[in-house]
Amino acid sequence: MFLKNRWYVAAWDHEVDRQPMGRTICGEPIVLYRKFDRSIAALQDACPHRLLPLSMGIKEGDNLRCRYHGMLFSPDGAVLEMPIKTERPNQGACARSYPVVERHRLIWVWIGEAAQADPALIPDFWPCSHPDWTFDGGYYPIKCDYRLVIDNLMDLTHETYTHQGSIGQPELMEAPIHTEVRGEEVFVTRWMPGVNAPPFWRDALKKEGPVDRWQICQYIAPSSILIDVGVAPIGAGATIANHDQGVRGMVIDALTPETETSTHYFWGMARNFDIRDQGFTERFKAQQGRVFAEDVEVLEAQQRSIEANPTMKLRAFSIDSGGVRSRLLLERLIKAQAAPSLEAAE
Amino acid sequence: MFLKNRWYVAAWDHEVDRQPMGRTICGEPIVLYRKFDRSIAALQDACPHRLLPLSMGIKEGDNLRCRYHGMLFSPDGAVLEMPIKTERPNQGACARSYPVVERHRLIWVWIGEAAQADPALIPDFWPCSHPDWTFDGGYYPIKCDYRLVIDNLMDLTHETYTHQGSIGQPELMEAPIHTEVRGEEVFVTRWMPGVNAPPFWRDALKKEGPVDRWQICQYIAPSSILIDVGVAPIGAGATIANHDQGVRGMVIDALTPETETSTHYFWGMARNFDIRDQGFTERFKAQQGRVFAEDVEVLEAQQRSIEANPTMKLRAFSIDSGGVRSRLLLERLIKAQAAPSLEAAE
Amino acid sequence: MFLKNRWYVAAWDHEVDRQPMGRTICGEPIVLYRKFDRSIAALQDACPHRLLPLSMGIKEGDNLRCRYHGMLFSPDGAVLEMPIKTERPNQGACARSYPVVERHRLIWVWIGEAAQADPALIPDFWPCSHPDWTFDGGYYPIKCDYRLVIDNLMDLTHETYTHQGSIGQPELMEAPIHTEVRGEEVFVTRWMPGVNAPPFWRDALKKEGPVDRWQICQYIAPSSILIDVGVAPIGAGATIANHDQGVRGMVIDALTPETETSTHYFWGMARNFDIRDQGFTERFKAQQGRVFAEDVEVLEAQQRSIEANPTMKLRAFSIDSGGVRSRLLLERLIKAQAAPSLEAAE
Repeated sequence: MFLKNRWYVAAWDHEVDRQPMGRTICGEPIVLYRKFDRSIAALQDACPHRLLPLSMGIKEGDNLRCRYHGMLFSPDGAVLEMPIKTERPNQGACARSYPVVERHRLIWVWIGEAAQADPALIPDFWPCSHPDWTFDGGYYPIKCDYRLVIDNLMDLTHETYTHQGSIGQPELMEAPIHTEVRGEEVFVTRWMPGVNAPPFWRDALKKEGPVDRWQICQYIAPSSILIDVGVAPIGAGATIANHDQGVRGMVIDALTPETETSTHYFWGMARNFDIRDQGFTERFKAQQGRVFAEDVEVLEAQQRSIEANPTMKLRAFSIDSGGVRSRLLLERLIKAQAAPSLEAAE
Repeated sequence: MFLKNRWYVAAWDHEVDRQPMGRTICGEPIVLYRKFDRSIAALQDACPHRLLPLSMGIKEGDNLRCRYHGMLFSPDGAVLEMPIKTERPNQGACARSYPVVERHRLIWVWIGEAAQADPALIPDFWPCSHPDWTFDGGYYPIKCDYRLVIDNLMDLTHETYTHQGSIGQPELMEAPIHTEVRGEEVFVTRWMPGVNAPPFWRDALKKEGPVDRWQICQYIAPSSILIDVGVAPIGAGATIANHDQGVRGMVIDALTPETETSTHYFWGMARNFDIRDQGFTERFKAQQGRVFAEDVEVLEAQQRSIEANPTMKLRAFSIDSGGVRSRLLLERLIKAQAAPSLEAAE
Repeated sequence: MFLKNRWYVAAWDHEVDRQPMGRTICGEPIVLYRKFDRSIAALQDACPHRLLPLSMGIKEGDNLRCRYHGMLFSPDGAVLEMPIKTERPNQGACARSYPVVERHRLIWVWIGEAAQADPALIPDFWPCSHPDWTFDGGYYPIKCDYRLVIDNLMDLTHETYTHQGSIGQPELMEAPIHTEVRGEEVFVTRWMPGVNAPPFWRDALKKEGPVDRWQICQYIAPSSILIDVGVAPIGAGATIANHDQGVRGMVIDALTPETETSTHYFWGMARNFDIRDQGFTERFKAQQGRVFAEDVEVLEAQQRSIEANPTMKLRAFSIDSGGVRSRLLLERLIKAQAAPSLEAAE
């Protein structure tokens, strides 16, 4: 059901410390903890002996001891001690270890065959750690299929209604969008030249008058989305390809499936203006909390409604092209993994 | 599992106002709201686009707009606007509309084929709105199969034990009953000539001494029950067919299945005496609340016990003849709907 | 799934009084109550009429009347009255009765064929009622497979880690164990001659210096465990077979399956020293409450982890020999009951 052999965000960098924490990724319970050298260990969260979660275990230096019978594991899952210390460690009972990389303030775990875990495949979440930008984000669990969140983010027109009390803008519905698939990515681009800036962007620009405005949603399979948003004064020369003339924000979204009907949502926003203004950051986070609550209400209601109406199917209209392309791409990749021999034969 | 092509009570008249409300009837999520002309709209409670419940939607005049992407529906489910307003409304994505009638203070919804929805088929709940009677009632959700409530109501002998702290009367067990099926109705009749009136009826009659007493339970398939109860002074000429010589009450019960194991219970009582005495009404309602709590406790425990004892079957004794006949009638009607072509061929 | 034709503990003697109480044993809902002569009645907890739990019923002397329609049952389940009292009792609708024996302060119920219920088969829980010992215990529900509790108790080495904050003793891990199967019992014996007594036993003995120490775990199929623990001064002549020279405790555990993933745990401890010291008993109970909470946390987490990791299997190491032998014995007995004719043919 899930796309394996991919990197998934397991946690924010600040969530993982020396005490073990458990988190289920794509249905697999995993325990994470930080070593003295600050690198991360990621093991199956069940002792191979009697399956007690290792996240209940006892840290001994960088090693982890099961709280039930005391098997001791190294950070890479090797057995260091059996319950009876004098017995030879049985490496057939080692704990499965997951490739793990900390990058751009996020902890990425590889789900699938460890041999294929190439860090070069980690999506480029540069806005989270770029020195010229400021960034803040949060973790939100949602009780819905992660693909519903992809739909939600790849079509920002929902802001008009879902967020009518906060950030909704009817103008969004009128601007044409361009959708494009490139490899394992989908882009939805909206270029709005010579429009009035909405309040948020006008204040960011500190200037009234017409602007060129853009929204570029980038889906990266299986479940990352980056959204490039902002405005520039007209005549400043901003284009869809190059638009650093005004004020820019980068929204980052990592949607890690926990189960088929629950999602770990890692959300954040970076900006390249007023980056020392901590008050702006805090006010923005407070507003975003309200917006996010509106999305959660809709997404969880949608999940329940899908289950309550088993004979109905989701429909797609023109506004859904971004979500549709993203889902088709994801579906194709999941099908390909189900038929690896066929793939190999081709 | 449910009998389709029938009217079911969805709500009391006072429950439905201009704001949409969701209620599941026979497993089908439905949204109800009142129009400016006070008639009722009833639509499938899932937007045909992405299935968000329309009960979360935004009212615009008599129309309903989905809170997710803003599709706008008329009260009969027609698409008035697509998410992008300039696109032509796609009527293939209209919302299913349910025939709905407000009658006798209740909102009735037709589950099944709309073409067959004849308001003449609505059960006659005249006591709820008769000018010479006073009426009050309430809504109670119960976590049990609606058929267990039919059993409960078609055999009032349970009052002796279940309600021994409130309205139980051992005399009820001794009076013979007569059970009769007429079309899609079942009658259980108990005629008790020359008995002592129990306290409630003695006070209603404002007179001591022997009375003729009756209980007539009328089951109307699939899930309505009217119970005609009362006493008349002996010699006043009351008969089973005509008994307006004394004091009369009409208990009305509509048992609308929500799911296979939960029921919307609409209960009320009308009386033809002291109809201006609001204090009597309130005192009676308070007592009835206690009686009802006793029934809910029994019915929900029975449901759990049925699930916990899967090898046991419900048995029927002589007192159960009303419930047995009602269930047989209901079962026959449900079977008939499963084999419509056979029916047609006959 | 459960071993039938065995005695299971349904309750402590003090839990059952004249008011009926419901408890599910091996998936079977049972109602228990005490008669005037203080013997116990145990019936199926569902009225054969409409399945209302009889534990909601009304006691009339030693008989039990259903709260729904008033069927009256004798303590052995015979029908004494039908809902209509004048009808002849239909013994085809009697309530199933369970053989029940009160012994050693526990109420034992026979699950299976009543004809085979021989009280001589009740496990000998003598420490609960021996005049020279004092005893106290408690009832604890746990949300896990009862076999996980057997594993837990037949390997006390887990005390080192699970109970490291309370009673854990690393020395336990070093002492060799002897495991032996005798009929339907498994013994795990640990004899530690000339060791330092841990604080608890040193205080019990009221004397410092080396002791002989023992732990003898006795599993009795399907789900009873007695643990003989204590110390004696060296040179006092204590042996594994005879060790009344010092201070002794007997831990008793009855693990009655409620469902496949929940257990009624009846725990207690008897001792043969300071038997009039009620303060010692109370202090010991308070400590044991903390120890027990540690076990519950581990056992319920293990149960959840087993469900979350369906592809993983429990492994057994040398320390698990007691649990492994007990499980094999239990499995063999359950298989034998599934093929009774084969057994009979042998």
